[in-house]
Amino acid sequence: MVRIILSGCNGKMGKVISGLANNFSNLSIVAGIDKNTDGSSYPVFSSIGECTVDADVILDFSRPDALDSLLKYAKEKNVGVVLCTTGFTDEQLSQITEASKEIPVFRSANMSIGINVVNKVLRSISALLYNNFDIEIIEKHHNQKVDAPSGTALLLANTIKDSIPEETQFTYGREGIAKREHKEIGIHAIRGGSIVGDHDVIFAGQGEVIEISHKAISREVFAVGALKACEFMYGKGKGFYSMDDVVK
Amino acid sequence: MVRIILSGCNGKMGKVISGLANNFSNLSIVAGIDKNTDGSSYPVFSSIGECTVDADVILDFSRPDALDSLLKYAKEKNVGVVLCTTGFTDEQLSQITEASKEIPVFRSANMSIGINVVNKVLRSISALLYNNFDIEIIEKHHNQKVDAPSGTALLLANTIKDSIPEETQFTYGREGIAKREHKEIGIHAIRGGSIVGDHDVIFAGQGEVIEISHKAISREVFAVGALKACEFMYGKGKGFYSMDDVVK
Amino acid sequence: MVRIILSGCNGKMGKVISGLANNFSNLSIVAGIDKNTDGSSYPVFSSIGECTVDADVILDFSRPDALDSLLKYAKEKNVGVVLCTTGFTDEQLSQITEASKEIPVFRSANMSIGINVVNKVLRSISALLYNNFDIEIIEKHHNQKVDAPSGTALLLANTIKDSIPEETQFTYGREGIAKREHKEIGIHAIRGGSIVGDHDVIFAGQGEVIEISHKAISREVFAVGALKACEFMYGKGKGFYSMDDVVK
Amino acid sequence: MVRIILSGCNGKMGKVISGLANNFSNLSIVAGIDKNTDGSSYPVFSSIGECTVDADVILDFSRPDALDSLLKYAKEKNVGVVLCTTGFTDEQLSQITEASKEIPVFRSANMSIGINVVNKVLRSISALLYNNFDIEIIEKHHNQKVDAPSGTALLLANTIKDSIPEETQFTYGREGIAKREHKEIGIHAIRGGSIVGDHDVIFAGQGEVIEISHKAISREVFAVGALKACEFMYGKGKGFYSMDDVVK
Repeated sequence: MVRIILSGCNGKMGKVISGLANNFSNLSIVAGIDKNTDGSSYPVFSSIGECTVDADVILDFSRPDALDSLLKYAKEKNVGVVLCTTGFTDEQLSQITEASKEIPVFRSANMSIGINVVNKVLRSISALLYNNFDIEIIEKHHNQKVDAPSGTALLLANTIKDSIPEETQFTYGREGIAKREHKEIGIHAIRGGSIVGDHDVIFAGQGEVIEISHKAISREVFAVGALKACEFMYGKGKGFYSMDDVVK
Repeated sequence: MVRIILSGCNGKMGKVISGLANNFSNLSIVAGIDKNTDGSSYPVFSSIGECTVDADVILDFSRPDALDSLLKYAKEKNVGVVLCTTGFTDEQLSQITEASKEIPVFRSANMSIGINVVNKVLRSISALLYNNFDIEIIEKHHNQKVDAPSGTALLLANTIKDSIPEETQFTYGREGIAKREHKEIGIHAIRGGSIVGDHDVIFAGQGEVIEISHKAISREVFAVGALKACEFMYGKGKGFYSMDDVVK
Repeated sequence: MVRIILSGCNGKMGKVISGLANNFSNLSIVAGIDKNTDGSSYPVFSSIGECTVDADVILDFSRPDALDSLLKYAKEKNVGVVLCTTGFTDEQLSQITEASKEIPVFRSANMSIGINVVNKVLRSISALLYNNFDIEIIEKHHNQKVDAPSGTALLLANTIKDSIPEETQFTYGREGIAKREHKEIGIHAIRGGSIVGDHDVIFAGQGEVIEISHKAISREVFAVGALKACEFMYGKGKGFYSMDDVVK
Repeated sequence: MVRIILSGCNGKMGKVISGLANNFSNLSIVAGIDKNTDGSSYPVFSSIGECTVDADVILDFSRPDALDSLLKYAKEKNVGVVLCTTGFTDEQLSQITEASKEIPVFRSANMSIGINVVNKVLRSISALLYNNFDIEIIEKHHNQKVDAPSGTALLLANTIKDSIPEETQFTYGREGIAKREHKEIGIHAIRGGSIVGDHDVIFAGQGEVIEISHKAISREVFAVGALKACEFMYGKGKGFYSMDDVVK
C-alpha cells in the first residue's frame, strides 16, 4: 500500500484526487495539507510542518510558494515528492533539480498518461513515416483559450521535429495559392464552445492515412496521471523522474 | 427507362459513368459521343450531330467547346441536358441560362449528392445554432492541391454566412495570443498525401459538439450525382435545375 | 427578463444551472426550491408552497414526487413549467398532459439542444438519402453504462426508421459470413473509460460518406438546453411544448 | 538504383505499380512478366523463363500458380523475391519458407506500410495502457464485403491480445443489459457504401481517450508498400523478411 500525503487537498484538483483514489486499491491518502482544514476521510493539517502521519510519497497540487516547506519536510522524512503544481520560477525549478540529488522527485509538463503515451509513439514512428507521409496536427480547445496553438500541440510538434533528421518547418493555417512543401508540419488551432482539449496527429501518405489522437474528457485525466505517478514512485531511490519513465 | 446520350463517353468520367450506369435499373446509356469512337455496349458517334439514337436526356462530361452543338441538338430534339463539364466562360453560362427558356437544363457547381445534402442541412441549422455555438470548418485534401481553402469549403462557409443574420468573418488558421470572437468562422486547410477530399463543419457549444462531415472516396461520387440528375430530369419541362432541386 | 424559480436548486443539476444562468443576460433565477435551503444569490424555500417571489416560469430538476405541488402552484399563479425531472410514472405523464390544457407545459426526453437538432436533421434527410446510402449508427459511452444501445441511439434510429417509407431492420453488431442487406440499420455500442456520450450517424454511399455526429462533453449540455427552454417559454400560452419546438 | 522485374505487370495491381514507380527515384522497373504482353515503358515477357533482363528483385503480383517458375528463376539468378500474390496453399507457403534458406524472400499478410506501423505501435503500447484503459476496435468496409470482422481487424486484435499478459476476450457488438467487463476487447464491423477500409483502435480511460486509426484511400497503398519492400530488399542476403522488418 502506497501511503500518500495530499498537499492542496481541498483545492479543485485535490478534491478530484480524493474522489478517484478509492479506485486504486494499492493507494491510500493518509493525510491532507490545506489552509482550509475541512474534514475528510483523512486528517487535514494546515501546513506540512504540522503533519504527524507517516507516508511514502507527497503528492502536491497546491501552490508554488509551498515548495520550500515541502522539500524541507521530504528531505527530513526521506519521502518522495510528486510535484503537479504549475507556475514554478526558474529558480524554483533549479531547487527541484537540486533536491533530486537527495530524494526521489517527480515532475512533468503534462500529467496525462495519454498525452505522454502519444508523445512516446510519435518519437518512435515520426522518422520512420516522414519520407512517405505528410504530417499535420489539429488541436481543438474551448473558446476562452487565449493562446494558439496549445502548449501540448507544440510539445507534440517539437517531438516530431526532433525525431526527424531533415529540417522541418511549422505552418499555422493556410490561405491562398501555394502547394504544400514536404518539410511543412501543419498546426491548426480550432476554437469553440467548451471543448476540453483534443489533439490529432495526421500522417497522410499515398493511398492511406494514419491518425493518432488524444481527447481529454475532464481534469480527472490529470488526477489519474498523478496517482499513477505515486504508484510509480513507491520504493524509488533519489533521482529525477517524469511521465516518460511511467509510460516507458 | 430514362435513355441517356453520354457526351464524352471515353474520357475518365465517361468511363466511370458507363461502369456505374448498370447499377441503375431505370437508366440506360443508349449512345455515346466522343472523338475516340472505341466501341462499347452502346454505339459511339464522333459528334452529337451524327447521333441517330433517340434519347430522353444528354449527359455531358466533355469539354466547354462542345456546348454549341449540344444545345443546338437538344433544342432540335427537345431533350434535356445535364451539363457536368467545368470551365464554361461567362458568355457560355449566359447561353446556358438562355437555353433553359426553351429546354430543360441542369447544372451545379458540385455534382456530389452528399455535399449538396450537407449544404442544405447547413442552410437549415446554421441560424438556429449560431447564438449558442461556435462554427469552424476543417477541410483536408491531397498535397498537390494548390488553392486553400478548397472551393467546396468556401461554398459551405458562404452558405453558413448567408444563413446567419449577424455579420460573420472568416478566419484562416490561428497563431498567437487572441481569444476567439463569436463572429469568427474558422476555416482550416489540411494538406497531405493523396486525401481525396474531406469537409467537416463543427458546431461547438457549451457542453456539446455537433459535427456534419463529408468524405469523398473517389470520383464515382460525381458520376452517381450525374446519374441521379438524369433520373431527376426525366419528364421535366423547360427550365433551369440544379442539385438543390434533387436533394430538396 | 425571464424570471425563473429553480426547483431542486441545490441538487447536482440545480447547481450547474445556477452557475450557467449568469451567461444568459435575459434570464434571472429569482428563487430556489430545495429541502436543503442553503443560501445562494437568490432566496431558497423548502417547498414551492412557501415561495413568495413572482416568476415567469418554473424550471424543475427535482424529483417526480414534487409534481403535484408544482402543477398546483403553476395553475394558481398561471406560470409555465419546464419539467426536466426524469422517472415520471405513466399516471404522472397523463397528469402533465392534462395540465397543459390550462397552463404552458414543457417536457422532452432529451434536453440537449444538439441531440434535438441532430434528430431534426435526420428526419429531413433520411428518406432523401436512403435509396443510395447505407445507414449505420455508432454510439460510445463509459464502461459503467448497463444498457446497450443507448436510449438516445434508439431515439435517433427510430427517427430514421419512421422517416423511411420502406421497411428497415436494426442490426446490433456483426460477426460471420453475410453480406449487408440494404434494409439494415447497424447500431454499434462502444463502451469504455469515462466517455460521456457520443452518437455518430453514418450515411455511406457510392464514393462518399456523410456523418452527423454529436458529442456530449458534460452535463452542462442539459442545463443549457433547460435554460433555452425557459427562454422559449416566455410569453407562451397554455399548451404542450418540447425541444422539437425550440429547434424548429 | 534497384532494378525490378514486375510479375503480373498488366494486371490491376501491376498497372498501379507501374504508375507509381516513377515517384521512386531509386527504383526502376526493367522488365515485366504477363500473359498479356502489351507494350509498356519496359519490355514484357510472357513468362519469367523468357526474361533476358538482369534485375535485383522480382516483385510478384501475379497468381499462386506462377510460384514454381518464379522461385526457380530467382534461385538460378540469385535475386530476391517480394511475393504479394495472395491465396497460396499451405504447401506453397512451406515452399516459400524453404526457398528463403537459399535466397532473400519477402512476404506479408498486409502490404500497407500504415497498417504495419499501427500494428507495431499496438504491440508497444497495449500492455502499458491495458490496466487503465478499455480497448475497442471499429472497422468500416464497403457493403459487398462478406466477412465480419475484417481480416485486418483480427490481425490488430490478436496483436493486442498477444501483448497483454492477462486473458482477454473478443466481443462482437452489444445489445441488452450487461456492464462491460474489463477483459473484453470490443470489435465492431460497420458496413456501407464503397468504404475502402478504415480501422480505428480506441483506448478509453478515465478522463481521456487515445485513438490510433488507419484509413485506406485506394489500392495504391499496397503498391507503395510493395515498392518500399523492393527498396528494403536491395542488397539483402538470403532469409525471410516481412513488413515488420520494413517498419522497424
